[in-house]
Parts: sequence; C-alpha cells; structure tokens
Amino acid sequence: MNQITLSKPLDMHLHLRDGQMLETVAPLSANSFAGAVIMPNLVPPVDSLEKCLSYRERIISACAANNFEPYMTLFFKNYAEKELAAAKPHIIGIKLYPDGITTNSQGGVKAIEDAEPTIELMQELGIPLLVHGETADFVMDREEKFLSVYQQIAKKFPRLHIVMEHITTRHAVALLDRFENLFATVTLHHLLITLDDVAGGMLNPHLFCKPIAKRPEDRDALLEAALSAHPKLSFGSDSAPHPQSKKECCGCAAGVFTAPIALPILAALFDRHGKLDNLQSFVSGNAVRNYRINPPEKEVALVKEPSLIPEKYGDVVPMWAGQEISWRLVS
Amino acid sequence: MNQITLSKPLDMHLHLRDGQMLETVAPLSANSFAGAVIMPNLVPPVDSLEKCLSYRERIISACAANNFEPYMTLFFKNYAEKELAAAKPHIIGIKLYPDGITTNSQGGVKAIEDAEPTIELMQELGIPLLVHGETADFVMDREEKFLSVYQQIAKKFPRLHIVMEHITTRHAVALLDRFENLFATVTLHHLLITLDDVAGGMLNPHLFCKPIAKRPEDRDALLEAALSAHPKLSFGSDSAPHPQSKKECCGCAAGVFTAPIALPILAALFDRHGKLDNLQSFVSGNAVRNYRINPPEKEVALVKEPSLIPEKYGDVVPMWAGQEISWRLVS
Repeated sequence: MNQITLSKPLDMHLHLRDGQMLETVAPLSANSFAGAVIMPNLVPPVDSLEKCLSYRERIISACAANNFEPYMTLFFKNYAEKELAAAKPHIIGIKLYPDGITTNSQGGVKAIEDAEPTIELMQELGIPLLVHGETADFVMDREEKFLSVYQQIAKKFPRLHIVMEHITTRHAVALLDRFENLFATVTLHHLLITLDDVAGGMLNPHLFCKPIAKRPEDRDALLEAALSAHPKLSFGSDSAPHPQSKKECCGCAAGVFTAPIALPILAALFDRHGKLDNLQSFVSGNAVRNYRINPPEKEVALVKEPSLIPEKYGDVVPMWAGQEISWRLVS
Repeated sequence: MNQITLSKPLDMHLHLRDGQMLETVAPLSANSFAGAVIMPNLVPPVDSLEKCLSYRERIISACAANNFEPYMTLFFKNYAEKELAAAKPHIIGIKLYPDGITTNSQGGVKAIEDAEPTIELMQELGIPLLVHGETADFVMDREEKFLSVYQQIAKKFPRLHIVMEHITTRHAVALLDRFENLFATVTLHHLLITLDDVAGGMLNPHLFCKPIAKRPEDRDALLEAALSAHPKLSFGSDSAPHPQSKKECCGCAAGVFTAPIALPILAALFDRHGKLDNLQSFVSGNAVRNYRINPPEKEVALVKEPSLIPEKYGDVVPMWAGQEISWRLVS
C-alpha cells in the first residue's frame, strides 16, 4: 500500500499548554487528529470543573473550525463525590501525577494510599484513572519500580479503568496481559528511540523526556505490542512543546514535540514492518472501544511520498527536525 | 583534620587540548598537580614521537614556570618496533581508543586483533597500554561489554601493564582483583554522580561524559575502591574542556571539566567519609608505585573552608559551577 486513510485518528495523551503556546500547537494537533486526551498539568493545574471547562473553551477556540474533540482531564487531587459527579460528563478521566515527578507535577500525589478515597469514588462513578507511573528511584528504574503500584490499584479497584500512560518498558507491556482493568498508551518516540539516541552519541535535548527512553529490549517490546495492535494499547504522543530556548540550554526541560508529524512517522514505521493494516486500531480503534468514545468524523489521508520535517513550528523544535521521512499527510 | 598537604598530586588522565584552550586550562592543572597523564586525542592525533615532543613543548610553555610534568602518551596505531623504542623514554604509555567511540577517536582501533602486533611489542619494551574501554553497544552496557577485551589482553599479554581508564562500573572494579596486570583510573565525577544527575531531573550537559555515568551501585563500588585507596586504582580526572557553546546547545559534546576543582572536592569527599588519610595514595602514591614514576616535588595544601566554584574558567564551565564546596586550595 502506498496510501492509507485513517478514520478518526486519536492522540490519547497530549500536552497543549496555554496562552501563545496553545495557539501555536493546538491547530497542529487538530490538523492530524479527530481528538486528543488533554493533559491537565498547567500552572496552576486544571483541578476544578470550572478550570477544565474554561481550558476546553480556549482549546476549541485555538483550533478554530477544525472539528477536533479535546477529551479533558482533571489533575488528580482528593475530590468530593459531588465534584466528581458534576465533572464526569465533561472529562474522560483524571490524571494522577506523583508529586514533582515530571514537568508541572508539583502538588501531585505523595503516597498512593492518600489517593484511595478519591480512586474509590472514581471506580463507583466510572471515571478512568490515567497515571504517570514513575517513582523517584534511579532514572532507568522509575517505571519498573512503579509497577507494584499499578498492581496494587488494579487488584484493589477491579472495576476501575486504569491507564498506564506513556509506558516505556517491556515489564509494563507484560503487565497489560495480567490485569483486565489495566490499559496503556505509548508515544511515538518510545517506539523509535532508546537512551542511546538521547545520550549515546552527542547529548540530544530534543529527545529528552520523562519517562526517559529505556533499553533496546524495552523499545522492541513496545514496538511489537504497537505493531500487533495490542487491544489494550493506544497511541498517545505525549507531545510536549517547549520553546527552543528551554531545550537547547543548560538544564533542558523534558518533553518531545511530535504531534504534527506523528501520523506520517507512524505510517512509515508500520509500513516498514508490513503492519500498516494495524495502524487504524493503534491510533483510534482500540481507544474508541476501550474508552467507549465517539470521536468526530474525520478522515486523515497519508501517502508514501518523501517529506521534510520542518525545523520549527513557531518557537518549538519537533523531533527529527529537518530530516526526511518517507510518508506525508495529504493536506 | 581540617587541613591536608598532598605531596606530588597527580592527575593520571587529562585532556589539555591545544591552542587557546591549552593556554586556558594547562595552568589550572599545573596549579593543583605535580604532573598529569596527557591524552593524545588531538585533531590530528598525537601519533608520532615528533608530534608528541612538540605537544609537550607547547604544554610546558603554557604552564610557564609551574613545575608540572606532562606524562605524554601516543595515540594507538600500529607502530614499528623502531618507533616504539625511540618513543619509549618520552612517553608513559600508549592510549588505545576503539574507532569513533568518543571525542576525537576517529582512526582508533577497529578490532583488537589488529592491534596485537603492536601490543606485543609494547609488552616486550615495557610500555603501558592505556585503554578507553567501551564497545558500540547500548550506552549503559558499553563498558561492561568491553570487559571481555580487557580479559583477553590481560591473559594474552601477562607482562603488559594495562590501565582501564576512567572506569564507571562495579564490574570493572571487580576485574581489578582478577588480573595482576590490570590497573585503573577513576574520575572525580564518576565517584559523585549517576545517570540521575545527567538525565534524572533536567538534562545537565555539564555532567554528560563518555563513558556515561552509570547506576548508583556502580558509583558506590567506585567510591568504595577509591576511599579505601585500592592499590591498583588512581585518580584520573578525565577533565575535558569544551567551550560553553559546545555544551549548552543541541548536540552537546561529551566531557566534564574538573581539573581546577578536583582536589578540594576530593578532599571534601574523603573527609566526609572519614578517609582523608587515604587521599594521598589515591591521588599520587598508587600511581607513583604502579608506574614507577618520580614526579616533581610539589606540595599542595588544602584547608576545610568553604569556597565557591567559579562560574567559568575562560569560556569553560566547570562541574558544579557556582556551587559552594567545603574545602579549598591554599594558594
């Protein structure tokens, strides 16, 4: 196949920021996707229905007429049942961050036990729990060490829909098949890179992210699960824009910007492995089924023709800036 | 003890570069050390006696009157016996780089078997072999994967003095005790940091080096060997200056600049662990005995008083720039 049309493609993990950055990046996601799960780690965090609805308005406004559904999330804190019940129709889930573990996660959860009353309510109300699953251990171990927390929640709340966000290890992939109520997203970059690409040659800040890219055998396990359209795994870019000055400096911020180029690179990747038929499930079908959502009608066509990744979008440098890839969006 | 005087301190692994950078950094090393082993990876490499003697002159000239012995090395290539015999009185050893494995290592050894004729001659002539021991594997495995090469050389050339330069893993520490003819250097930064310090929080280009800093259990093994003054382990800073613009950018060069601050930080480290008595062996005694060298008379006094690490030396940003440390050089 030299072309493919994706129906209702979804980005199940996206950072759109706010203000000028939102204006820059939201239209780029809307150009590729029918909808996206919007992360709530603004400063201050999106931790009330009022903030959430107001943020949603700003996103819709930034996307203008582009038929794009922002699936909103709340920043996890202990919420009253009334708040949760009121928020439920407006959100796809609540995003739990361990305190201080990544960009703008200050005020997150210090101990999972403290979070259990709200998690219990979420289970009762049918609100999914989305988790940044890392501990404060050694950087290469942070996700693996968190897996016991996933197991603890999955066992204790068997009717809770739990999403292990942006998984990076073969151990997390294996966990998907052990608990019925555990799901996962995986980014584009974690299907492609290892720590070698970040720090094996020169240091590459544009591939520095949290969780950090892991070992080759981890990347291979993620890739195999994605290419085979594992039914509990969905694409979530974790695309996270930072101004160039915050990436190419001493003390570079974590985050890889991939939203506008994710679909052509995924098409090239799945095509190279002879798995283009599985791309629809990975970028939409699995999420639609697992979350029971009904995204806006949108078809996105891709064709196998070389294209250049731009050096910048506004002030944001994308992954693989300036490089040629073998597929492109038909705009 | 609130002060210590080190006799003939040595830096057994040092990059001085050339030209203006040499002028900037050589006096800083000469200010702290009686001598240093000078790495030959200039562009082009120091791979003839003529280049070596000329480089030595430039170093001596840059240090001016500061009683500093540059222990010269040649860049490993296949040398004729005559060349080696002529070079021997002027060098402390020959530095082997696997081809392309680190900064300016192009033209290094592609397969260790190709190097054996020269290694054999070095054994006969009593010229030590200094090795950058990394393979091209996954970045966290590169040193461990190279250990079989060390074992192969150590067994095949039992009278060859082999130095595992800038070791970074607990596995390399363990190997020291398995082969009589294996020695090692360790840097300051590998006694202090792990990959967490490079990429666990923000990305820190000033702590990015090759070999990359490893896991906490590796750092702990290195530290224990250094603090206990393991008789086959010597201090070698691997201090490697790059202009600020090559560190704080996209595609940061590998290398940590520590030469001018190494002794006070080592004093603080050994003092904190109650091992100040072992510092003399680590920074001089072991190297003097193992290499049978006789460095210039130089005493360097340190006192337990707070001092600030400068933000820059010329255009070079040192490790821990701007931070306070608890010991200082008495100048």
